[in-house]
Amino acid sequence: MASSRVGRPSVVILGGGFGGLAAARALRPAPVQVTLIDRENHHVFQPLLYQAATAQLEAPDIGYPLRFLLRRHENSEVLMAEARSIDATAQCVHFSGGGSIRYDYLILATGAQPSYFGHPEWRTHAPGLKSIGDALEIRYRVLVAFERAEQEHDLDKRRTQLTFVIVGGGPTGVELAGAIAELARHALKRDFVHIDPTCARVVLVEAGPSILAAYPKALQQKALAQLARLGVEVRMSTPVRSVDEHGALVGDEPIAASAVLWAAGVSGAPIARSLGVPLDHHGLVPVAPTLHPPGLPNVFVVGDMAALVQDGEPVPGVSPAAIQEGRYAAHAIVDELRGKPVKPFRYWNKGLIATIGRSKAVARLPGNVQLSGFLAWLLYSAVHLTYLAGLRPRVHVLLTWIWSFFTYARGARLITSPMEEEKGAQPYGQLSMKTSILGSQISHSPPSGST
Amino acid sequence: MASSRVGRPSVVILGGGFGGLAAARALRPAPVQVTLIDRENHHVFQPLLYQAATAQLEAPDIGYPLRFLLRRHENSEVLMAEARSIDATAQCVHFSGGGSIRYDYLILATGAQPSYFGHPEWRTHAPGLKSIGDALEIRYRVLVAFERAEQEHDLDKRRTQLTFVIVGGGPTGVELAGAIAELARHALKRDFVHIDPTCARVVLVEAGPSILAAYPKALQQKALAQLARLGVEVRMSTPVRSVDEHGALVGDEPIAASAVLWAAGVSGAPIARSLGVPLDHHGLVPVAPTLHPPGLPNVFVVGDMAALVQDGEPVPGVSPAAIQEGRYAAHAIVDELRGKPVKPFRYWNKGLIATIGRSKAVARLPGNVQLSGFLAWLLYSAVHLTYLAGLRPRVHVLLTWIWSFFTYARGARLITSPMEEEKGAQPYGQLSMKTSILGSQISHSPPSGST
Repeated sequence: MASSRVGRPSVVILGGGFGGLAAARALRPAPVQVTLIDRENHHVFQPLLYQAATAQLEAPDIGYPLRFLLRRHENSEVLMAEARSIDATAQCVHFSGGGSIRYDYLILATGAQPSYFGHPEWRTHAPGLKSIGDALEIRYRVLVAFERAEQEHDLDKRRTQLTFVIVGGGPTGVELAGAIAELARHALKRDFVHIDPTCARVVLVEAGPSILAAYPKALQQKALAQLARLGVEVRMSTPVRSVDEHGALVGDEPIAASAVLWAAGVSGAPIARSLGVPLDHHGLVPVAPTLHPPGLPNVFVVGDMAALVQDGEPVPGVSPAAIQEGRYAAHAIVDELRGKPVKPFRYWNKGLIATIGRSKAVARLPGNVQLSGFLAWLLYSAVHLTYLAGLRPRVHVLLTWIWSFFTYARGARLITSPMEEEKGAQPYGQLSMKTSILGSQISHSPPSGST
Repeated sequence: MASSRVGRPSVVILGGGFGGLAAARALRPAPVQVTLIDRENHHVFQPLLYQAATAQLEAPDIGYPLRFLLRRHENSEVLMAEARSIDATAQCVHFSGGGSIRYDYLILATGAQPSYFGHPEWRTHAPGLKSIGDALEIRYRVLVAFERAEQEHDLDKRRTQLTFVIVGGGPTGVELAGAIAELARHALKRDFVHIDPTCARVVLVEAGPSILAAYPKALQQKALAQLARLGVEVRMSTPVRSVDEHGALVGDEPIAASAVLWAAGVSGAPIARSLGVPLDHHGLVPVAPTLHPPGLPNVFVVGDMAALVQDGEPVPGVSPAAIQEGRYAAHAIVDELRGKPVKPFRYWNKGLIATIGRSKAVARLPGNVQLSGFLAWLLYSAVHLTYLAGLRPRVHVLLTWIWSFFTYARGARLITSPMEEEKGAQPYGQLSMKTSILGSQISHSPPSGST
């Protein structure tokens, strides 16, 4: 048991994502007492979340217990709890459970959540991809769709089951669309008797005029060509007008689909409102180059939650930015405690990279270097392996990637989570709702010849 | 797409466990049309389920998609559906979804479920260990208990959070108790600030006079000694009289506990009742040496569901028995179709083996050979690796075991499933009940010195 050092200034970090974790790590040698608070017990490696959602990686490859990551930090403790509000005057964070914690410094790193453009009711029908729970939900919807299609004899309904709409042409949307197309075209190819999974339809919808808006035109074209080769239909300049249990209204065309997945926009976590400062129209906290919200010199906002403008351009909501900001906040606290002057934060853009399917990617590197195809994919793999936390996940993810590169196999194809949910809620021996939806068509099923 | 062969006799297999899967595999070259039906999409490697429940292995290590396992079987298809009842007269299985399927031969391999001795209401408070969902539920309860204890300041309540009761001294109970004790003593040892996980109390309760009743006396003694070394309290000849949300009444002693886990007894799956034959007092189907229930010559019952007596002793509910019975049923069908006489089934006892903690085991081998300690554990590991389905899980499990043998680390420590369950059910941005239970004590928390 590490002992808490009474008398040291307390730093409370809300959120164990890239920003919060980077701050906690940078504070390890500092003469402060750190409390890292997250409602989950684990850090999530968000850039690879889409691979968990499409049965390529397993949850423990991309989620690591925060306690384990910080176990050698003598001055840190981890609390699994949900923050409800911040009282910036009393320097206090309140929890949903009723408790609270005081802080001398607060690092707010709670990130962003999917934004449904004023239609929160769409969320039920179009899950976003922010947590491991989200990834498992998406994996469930996609895998069950193939199971249902296999039992469906009405051809229209079968086509609906095999249609997937992905909303949002940013990196997450592009990566999800490519991974689902490849799951259908390769991994599941030979597994069914009544359906041909390679006929699955994957539609990627983007309201703006181009996908991967942050990338140069040439790379956008490359990405479009790579998506086309995987059989993904891309609709640009096409807003999604509504989403319900049957599918989505894409521009003027209703597309019946078994799953609509949301990768279209983000807004700040609701706790930002309690800070008492004006938020931007995405619900993010505008911060000065010192990462302070106006009038709150002992609060830092880092990561996706911060709206920071540098050289006239917004700093993007990507993990390198969150890491750099988290580290900056930690060093700023140490400098201030030592009476040293605090320099403003500078974001160093390391470039952007996104994968399309199993072996292709596009990358924009510093110095206006552009890369695409297999080489970009190798770079992508190397960069992400480097940033994964710990030797074990690195080795495992590397082996998994090598394995599936050669076999197209997806190791993580279990349908568990939401099914078990219902089973658990019912008296033992009763039947699960979702499984029982399956099976309703089976009487029409061909096999038995002697009947 | 494999084509169904019209005109061939249809074999319906209910259940994709060891028995059902062995039958499907043995039928691969047979001139029949096989339909394997399971309510999950995966086969579960039950002997290692306790390792998934205690964060040693990940779900995909021990669960494999049935479709993938049977993808090269030209004469087989897999249906994910829940069977509701069997109409043996019409030779028909009905599904919860309303559909049905006819059969010429039925192999009933739906296995057993935990039996609460007439108290089904205990199940909510004392989950059993039969599916991957069960394993994730147990993992959740155990890991969250440590998180809650960390935030608890009342010493009595903290002790309750760190108390785990395992009911049933068979192999599952012994393995669970050993694995939880080791999780607390080693894997979590350094991860907390306010609690000492090594003080966790693990109580193993057995109503009968000895643990591992199927093992020789000497091995039982060895197992007791190994459990004692791990700090597990064992209570024998002590029935559990009640279970509720606070813990269990163990003999005359109420034990307050954060989790009560059930490994005490099994009963047949409810679908057995619809067969129309008398069941034994565990709800299992008494079968002849040909594995037929009385009067149903085209139905085979295999695995845990079958009550079979051989040489005056019941054939045990272990995976080798299920595999042998599944293969027997397949070969019996082929022999019958070829007009060959069908020999009765003979169970070949390969021995029994159970692990206790990270590097100890007890084994009873054929020829009355007994083994215990590290050597038995090596044998255990080799046997289980051999029986795992597929190269990928084998390599992964082997690497995981080697890794955790040297580091005591548990890779699969994510708290996800049941938490996400509730989050999903609530409007976005609202707080999860279970997380909010955490955090209620935080105001009392020591750290901040300057307040």
